[in-house]
Amino acid sequence: MADFRKLKETAWACNMELDQRGVVLYTFGNASAADPSQGVFAIKPSGVPYADLEPQDMVVVDFTGQVVEGRLAPSSDTATHAVLYRSFEGIGGVVHTHSTYATAWAQAERAIPVLGTTHADFLPTEVPCTRVLDETAVRGDYETATGELIVERFRDLSPLQVPMVLVARHGPFAWGRTGPEAVYHGVMLEELARLAWLTMALEPGTGPLASWLVEKHFQRKHGPDAYYGQKK
Amino acid sequence: MADFRKLKETAWACNMELDQRGVVLYTFGNASAADPSQGVFAIKPSGVPYADLEPQDMVVVDFTGQVVEGRLAPSSDTATHAVLYRSFEGIGGVVHTHSTYATAWAQAERAIPVLGTTHADFLPTEVPCTRVLDETAVRGDYETATGELIVERFRDLSPLQVPMVLVARHGPFAWGRTGPEAVYHGVMLEELARLAWLTMALEPGTGPLASWLVEKHFQRKHGPDAYYGQKK
Amino acid sequence: MADFRKLKETAWACNMELDQRGVVLYTFGNASAADPSQGVFAIKPSGVPYADLEPQDMVVVDFTGQVVEGRLAPSSDTATHAVLYRSFEGIGGVVHTHSTYATAWAQAERAIPVLGTTHADFLPTEVPCTRVLDETAVRGDYETATGELIVERFRDLSPLQVPMVLVARHGPFAWGRTGPEAVYHGVMLEELARLAWLTMALEPGTGPLASWLVEKHFQRKHGPDAYYGQKK
Amino acid sequence: MADFRKLKETAWACNMELDQRGVVLYTFGNASAADPSQGVFAIKPSGVPYADLEPQDMVVVDFTGQVVEGRLAPSSDTATHAVLYRSFEGIGGVVHTHSTYATAWAQAERAIPVLGTTHADFLPTEVPCTRVLDETAVRGDYETATGELIVERFRDLSPLQVPMVLVARHGPFAWGRTGPEAVYHGVMLEELARLAWLTMALEPGTGPLASWLVEKHFQRKHGPDAYYGQKK
Repeated sequence: MADFRKLKETAWACNMELDQRGVVLYTFGNASAADPSQGVFAIKPSGVPYADLEPQDMVVVDFTGQVVEGRLAPSSDTATHAVLYRSFEGIGGVVHTHSTYATAWAQAERAIPVLGTTHADFLPTEVPCTRVLDETAVRGDYETATGELIVERFRDLSPLQVPMVLVARHGPFAWGRTGPEAVYHGVMLEELARLAWLTMALEPGTGPLASWLVEKHFQRKHGPDAYYGQKK
Repeated sequence: MADFRKLKETAWACNMELDQRGVVLYTFGNASAADPSQGVFAIKPSGVPYADLEPQDMVVVDFTGQVVEGRLAPSSDTATHAVLYRSFEGIGGVVHTHSTYATAWAQAERAIPVLGTTHADFLPTEVPCTRVLDETAVRGDYETATGELIVERFRDLSPLQVPMVLVARHGPFAWGRTGPEAVYHGVMLEELARLAWLTMALEPGTGPLASWLVEKHFQRKHGPDAYYGQKK
Repeated sequence: MADFRKLKETAWACNMELDQRGVVLYTFGNASAADPSQGVFAIKPSGVPYADLEPQDMVVVDFTGQVVEGRLAPSSDTATHAVLYRSFEGIGGVVHTHSTYATAWAQAERAIPVLGTTHADFLPTEVPCTRVLDETAVRGDYETATGELIVERFRDLSPLQVPMVLVARHGPFAWGRTGPEAVYHGVMLEELARLAWLTMALEPGTGPLASWLVEKHFQRKHGPDAYYGQKK
Repeated sequence: MADFRKLKETAWACNMELDQRGVVLYTFGNASAADPSQGVFAIKPSGVPYADLEPQDMVVVDFTGQVVEGRLAPSSDTATHAVLYRSFEGIGGVVHTHSTYATAWAQAERAIPVLGTTHADFLPTEVPCTRVLDETAVRGDYETATGELIVERFRDLSPLQVPMVLVARHGPFAWGRTGPEAVYHGVMLEELARLAWLTMALEPGTGPLASWLVEKHFQRKHGPDAYYGQKK
């Protein structure tokens, strides 16, 4: 029998960091961490306040969304996470937050433009925003449809280069190679949303960052000759 | 003789959570918790700072607003709470906060529109805003008139489905089946107000959320086939 | 020889509360507490960080601004405090903060209108804003001129009814019957400024609160038949 | 062999204060402290979270940007710091933050105007904003070019009088006679940016502060007859 203790601890720590970073409120939001070699991920149980969470409360689910281990019901957004793990090769963590500024952009159905180098340090494009899900999809398997909506939006985008999205009228999702990286991207998305909100309020006509600055900042952190951080 | 110790402790804990959640300042705001079987509620005393409150300071009042037990004067808004307990069947808690964004919407005399799924997770309509109380009512029994003004606004609304309101030019009130649920709704009202404020500032023409998304999100948490949270 | 220990402790506690309430930054701002019977007040020394302040660091000054006791130089705004103590009968505390929203209104040279009942709970008029001090006054005894500018603005206002002001392009001052009441007014001024800022951003045409609501809220806290708080 | 322990401790304390003051997030931002007599400065290592920093992790670098001592790679912005130390006589500390409001002004490519006396307490001019760096410079030695861009902007400005700048589309840099003074200026820059943002949102037409008030406030803190603070 598989031992999911470490995976559940990672997922638990990711959920706790969402709470500590102030991007969730009450039982809102959820983080999961995957073990792609076993084809499973551990996710927050549904509707449990962060203060009450214990590592053993995490629910282990396979990539079709079926519960493998756990005594609680998994997050109501589990099917969305499952679609992302199935579709985005190389990711090992997903988070859904209700962070305020990112949700405001999502409610306005607007992508977050690249307005400065802080944004380009993380991704070389705007933070994309999906279309609004249509009535048929919402009345069907809603959470799976939400995942597919994100995948549709990424038809021409690389999920490892652009590790975040706004679901129109709903809110932000982010992912990463690991659970902690997904949390990091979820927290940074809120900061990019806030910076862009403040910039557009100050100067509504602000256009996008010059292409050479986008490229420079993205490459110095993520390119083959990246020189930010410590050599590993 | 009735023993109100437990009721007073609940009311006290509700008031303390208002303070911890940052939706009140100094002596502002108040929470009450009711025991409908005894026809009483316990409420914060008037003008006492939260840091000084003790459970035994709570004042027990009947649904006509008469003090049943307590050595301090009850909140100056007690008559408003009493009207709500008399009029809204099934509620067991009421809170009045001075939370900043909700108060801004109330000062602008504007209902908070349903702009996203976070809002629809809580209520299927806008957060209604009352009209401004007229001069005669204000000069009469003002706090009772405030309660009646809220009841008037709910003539065609279900108070259990829509557990919150803005009193025009004054501020937010919220309620719930219990005291803690009322606090939860009061805190979430502030978050909905903030999200909507940021969305309208970013995109003033944002229209309401599609009806199917409103229905889906409200029903998955509150409908007969709700699947959010843990089975009880 | 007079013993100012208690007065200095009160002034020190007032300054520390400014810091705890988040209305000052680094060495900015200052609070003083007066003993009108002795014609003196104790005030923060100039340019000392709040974290380093001790009660014995407070400087005792008479109402002409002359140091009576203390080894440090008093706040550079001491002469402004002195003018207010000389001119506003019945006040026993003065604070000057650099709180953000109140300073923004002052920088915009705009009075804060009465937009809701929270404001009317504290004062029955707008928070007045002075004119900008002219060149001659600024080049002369600047801090005394700042006090006189405030007094000029209060020619037709009662300082005990309207315990706060914005000095145009500079920032907020508040006062009260005691030092702690002055701090309370200074903190509330920031909250009123923030509420009004958010309201005007949401609905730029918001007009003033109906006169009957202004009167009702001000009188229920401050009138001869006030019924807010506990009987004393 | 030189002993850089004290210099590294100063630089470490400066970096930790950036974190405590909330002007950086995760590994963003960096502070350095210089010893001009030895022609070196100590700076944060690249990409290390603030929570993990120890004084001995600081990297000592000479004014050409060559590492003198340290086992970690220095901040990717090291060359920018080096240009400033070479070019701005009398400075002993440099900080680069990602503080939110200052970054919003930088992203909007707008200088922060002098709107009130709080600003004039720190500098007698607007906070200047550079032009956007052109493609050739970005593709070359980018961080050195960023430093030269700042120096170019200061052709007619005194870096000791105006100890802060916005790099267009990037973010704020600040400096001072010492490391701690640089941190102080970096934190205040965020507050000035926030005050100006709130003022312009409230009253878009707000013009600059009258020249006599600029002069008075700057001189009372920084002029030959300065009377703010304690005599030294």
